[in-house]
Amino acid sequence: MATLPGVITRMSTLFLRTLRDDPADAEVPSHKLLVRAGYIRRTAPGVYSWLPLGLRVFRKIEDIVREEMNALGAQEILLPALLPREPYETSGRWTEYGDNVFRLQDRKGNDMMLGPTHEELFTQLVKGEYSSYKDLPVILYQIQTKYRDEERPRAGLLRGREFVMKDSYSFDTTDAGLDHSYDLHRAAYQRIFDRLGVQYVIVAATSGAMGGSASEEFLAECEVGEDTFVRCVESGYAANVEAVITPVPAELPYDDAPAPVVHETGQTPTIDTLVAWANQALDGRSVEAADTLKNVLVKIRKPGEDWVITGIGIPGDREVDFKRLEASVEPAEVELLTDDDFAANPALVRGYIGPKGVQAAGGTYLVDPRVVTGTRWITGADEAGKHVVDLVAGRDFTPDGVIEAAQVRAGDPSPDGQGVLETARGIEIGHIFQLGRKYADAFELDVLGENGKPVRVTMGSYGLGVSRMVAVIAEQRHDDKGLVWPREVAPFDVHLVIANKDQAAVAGAQQLAEELDAAGLQVLFDDRKASPGVKFKDAELLGMPTVVVVGRGWAEGTVEVRDRATGEATAVPIDGAIEAIIAAVRG
Amino acid sequence: MATLPGVITRMSTLFLRTLRDDPADAEVPSHKLLVRAGYIRRTAPGVYSWLPLGLRVFRKIEDIVREEMNALGAQEILLPALLPREPYETSGRWTEYGDNVFRLQDRKGNDMMLGPTHEELFTQLVKGEYSSYKDLPVILYQIQTKYRDEERPRAGLLRGREFVMKDSYSFDTTDAGLDHSYDLHRAAYQRIFDRLGVQYVIVAATSGAMGGSASEEFLAECEVGEDTFVRCVESGYAANVEAVITPVPAELPYDDAPAPVVHETGQTPTIDTLVAWANQALDGRSVEAADTLKNVLVKIRKPGEDWVITGIGIPGDREVDFKRLEASVEPAEVELLTDDDFAANPALVRGYIGPKGVQAAGGTYLVDPRVVTGTRWITGADEAGKHVVDLVAGRDFTPDGVIEAAQVRAGDPSPDGQGVLETARGIEIGHIFQLGRKYADAFELDVLGENGKPVRVTMGSYGLGVSRMVAVIAEQRHDDKGLVWPREVAPFDVHLVIANKDQAAVAGAQQLAEELDAAGLQVLFDDRKASPGVKFKDAELLGMPTVVVVGRGWAEGTVEVRDRATGEATAVPIDGAIEAIIAAVRG
Repeated sequence: MATLPGVITRMSTLFLRTLRDDPADAEVPSHKLLVRAGYIRRTAPGVYSWLPLGLRVFRKIEDIVREEMNALGAQEILLPALLPREPYETSGRWTEYGDNVFRLQDRKGNDMMLGPTHEELFTQLVKGEYSSYKDLPVILYQIQTKYRDEERPRAGLLRGREFVMKDSYSFDTTDAGLDHSYDLHRAAYQRIFDRLGVQYVIVAATSGAMGGSASEEFLAECEVGEDTFVRCVESGYAANVEAVITPVPAELPYDDAPAPVVHETGQTPTIDTLVAWANQALDGRSVEAADTLKNVLVKIRKPGEDWVITGIGIPGDREVDFKRLEASVEPAEVELLTDDDFAANPALVRGYIGPKGVQAAGGTYLVDPRVVTGTRWITGADEAGKHVVDLVAGRDFTPDGVIEAAQVRAGDPSPDGQGVLETARGIEIGHIFQLGRKYADAFELDVLGENGKPVRVTMGSYGLGVSRMVAVIAEQRHDDKGLVWPREVAPFDVHLVIANKDQAAVAGAQQLAEELDAAGLQVLFDDRKASPGVKFKDAELLGMPTVVVVGRGWAEGTVEVRDRATGEATAVPIDGAIEAIIAAVRG
Repeated sequence: MATLPGVITRMSTLFLRTLRDDPADAEVPSHKLLVRAGYIRRTAPGVYSWLPLGLRVFRKIEDIVREEMNALGAQEILLPALLPREPYETSGRWTEYGDNVFRLQDRKGNDMMLGPTHEELFTQLVKGEYSSYKDLPVILYQIQTKYRDEERPRAGLLRGREFVMKDSYSFDTTDAGLDHSYDLHRAAYQRIFDRLGVQYVIVAATSGAMGGSASEEFLAECEVGEDTFVRCVESGYAANVEAVITPVPAELPYDDAPAPVVHETGQTPTIDTLVAWANQALDGRSVEAADTLKNVLVKIRKPGEDWVITGIGIPGDREVDFKRLEASVEPAEVELLTDDDFAANPALVRGYIGPKGVQAAGGTYLVDPRVVTGTRWITGADEAGKHVVDLVAGRDFTPDGVIEAAQVRAGDPSPDGQGVLETARGIEIGHIFQLGRKYADAFELDVLGENGKPVRVTMGSYGLGVSRMVAVIAEQRHDDKGLVWPREVAPFDVHLVIANKDQAAVAGAQQLAEELDAAGLQVLFDDRKASPGVKFKDAELLGMPTVVVVGRGWAEGTVEVRDRATGEATAVPIDGAIEAIIAAVRG
């Protein structure tokens, strides 16, 4: 970021007012601090303005992202935010986005939208320019303002409605080429987040509404994060909850298993009441919720097909995680059964559903991967007030398939077999996708192959939140006094404070500011008339990594160099101050 | 603009395809060439995408604007484009903008708009942060994407619907302070446009819908420009047509003027038919259109008042220029009379209107500044088929006022009395305004003055078209072969072409590219397999200022250095090639 030599930023004229109190609408630390420290201001719900200090952080992040994208060979372009409807109609996303995009009409009544992501337009663009396999691969990117009409914009910059992303798109003729483009991005993202000083994990992810196959998310570890993920300390495995694959236990022998028996269980429509009944009624058996088979009824509709009633059987000690269920059936839709559905299917007895009832009603019966052949279950007998005991999978019922829909819990075995999972929270800061040919199919993006025949192109899509990153870093790098910026993104290298009214000290501070500036450091110069106490508090709130105080020590020939992160303060002789400060900044 | 040492831009992989033919929708040279040369692509009407070369020019212009804004002491911030309705409701512009803004609603039904300019939000922002006269003056700016729903987007980037502007706003407590902030901008704009190599004029302007007083436009001289301006070669005077002030001739004696006589003139509803009648009917008189007084009827409505019928009397050899009329009455609205209006006012006889009829109908009668006391006119007698001859201004009728509404013509005397005006066309590239207290009044932006009493702030608003400038420069700097970029904004310093298949030449060119890059030059390296002819054509179309050819001369130990602007080509020994090229680039 270019500074102008000779134009030192003085707090006496800087457009900055710090606030003593937290803003009323702020819940998370980064939001509170960025507003209190005068980095950002709210303009509308989920829409923020960048004030001078905030903009400097934002631009430094942008520059780092740009450098690393250029280094991997990606080419920067810039597409508009105001987009026509047609390409999104072609891909089907005009409808799919629902209320999540801002839609508008121009004065001629043409439908337009504010772009939330640009797969369609990049696909169209490449189709317009390129025609031969020799033109590929190509990776294009932009750093651009995006819009999403979030239902609940929250946490300041963490979930906004207008925000800046780096989005890039790779175009290859082969799957191996796509793998390579994907790997280039993965490595570039690691370099970017490392340079930004962010603590993050890479988690396996499902692809969400974007379609496609391989996909990973970069999550900044953060208590206030909206995304829950799991990881295994022993093995380093980490995944989005939606992407966790349940380890399948071995099948059990069931030759000596007793035959299933239907019992009158009375009013036992819940797992708790069923377990209580079993422990009382089944002599000598100790029954737990995990011994029961909970059957949850939903209906699932594949694109262009009818709704199919589906029973999902999971161990009774778990709930169905609807997000995992949705991710498993995508692109099909899933809904809970309505009263009308039950009325239309008398074979389905609410509270007493069993595998057979579902299949008898013409439905599909899917089970959790733990429900392997030979496992024995207490479950519904498809009659009010009745359950069946010792129903053996693979003997007494045959599921139509397996589905990942049960909740994932801390302590569950890691899918890689090397330990157990723990859960944690994070903020999505990057997402890399192998889209495959979804968009190339929609737009018929072909190039002529080496043999003269058309080859369908395969694509990747890679997002990185640039404006969000300002808040993510603030979230990870602050203390109770204020922000603590890493050097790479701090608005200024040095915060120079005059804390001595003596004429010589003031003149000396001025000279120091000029010399630091001339040495190429970015200096924020607190030349205000305020008291030292007010200035020190502001310096802590604003969070520059190095604070230099021209204070009481001036008379004895020293200035104080403070490290914002460690709190360490060192008296440095004025004579060697420039060199000492440069050393502190350059580390 | 940062280049990455070691990452040389190669045309073999650059996302660039030049086109042989002009795009069908392009009319002006800059539009044709920027599309043909692969700098931009159209995404929707008036909405463009920047490809790699175009983006580089755009960023260089942005950087120059930023440098000069910082140098004048302005502070950069960044506001959103997606804006709430309320502030624009407060200023009255939510309604005033009419169809010219993009409006939308969010998922909760809140009205929002895409910002066309940000006076309201900057005013609010300063009100939120500042409270004392000691805080001022301050100048804030942003370089930001703006939206206008133009009725006829045209000429590529010259009149787009999504575009980037630098807009700045000054806040002062005194008029003298505002003058100073205005002068700072005027000087900065001159530096910016000089650095960009643009030929421009500064013209006096009316303030348009922005309100306020002093205002000047920076127009790039350009045949395809939409703005007509006038200038006086002798004096250097230049003005927007709307801002031209008609020199007032001296009053004439009328003691010996004959009394007015009403004549039956038959079917003479137009000036032409009236002049023909007069030359035939008035013995010995030679009558010209300029001897007749044309009365045009409009109605004018001041904000919050009723429509007032208004007659405008101008010499019959001129038309009313509606834009000048609108500018004169602003902020009042003006419309032509409807049939209903005539029906309701029988004193107004179409084709035969005279000054008295207008006033008899209760209307206001305003005249062109040339209609001074003592001038004699042939004009309508307010009866069908009748005109009056020798009607003397100030004797036979007394106008209610003077108005600038007549068209300005080449050959008119310059307002400064030093010659005559000529007309020319230009593209608006900058506009500086003294807004005064219009927005401060709307938002009650006060600061506490030195005496403890509130002082209303006075503001300036300053716009500069950043994305438009790419097209303006292309429009002024091209020839029949392609673009001819000035060095300050060219995408690359040097276009290095391999035009020799010899292995040694190819290797030599590669080494030359690396050495030029290492020397800090930005190199576009044409390493494609295409023929020399194709490459030379592309080099001319793309328009880098210096083209270096590794061609036939290689065997004799020379490369060719071509100047794109002059066409001059020089054979340079390979040994000193780097130094010679650097000298050519650095000028």
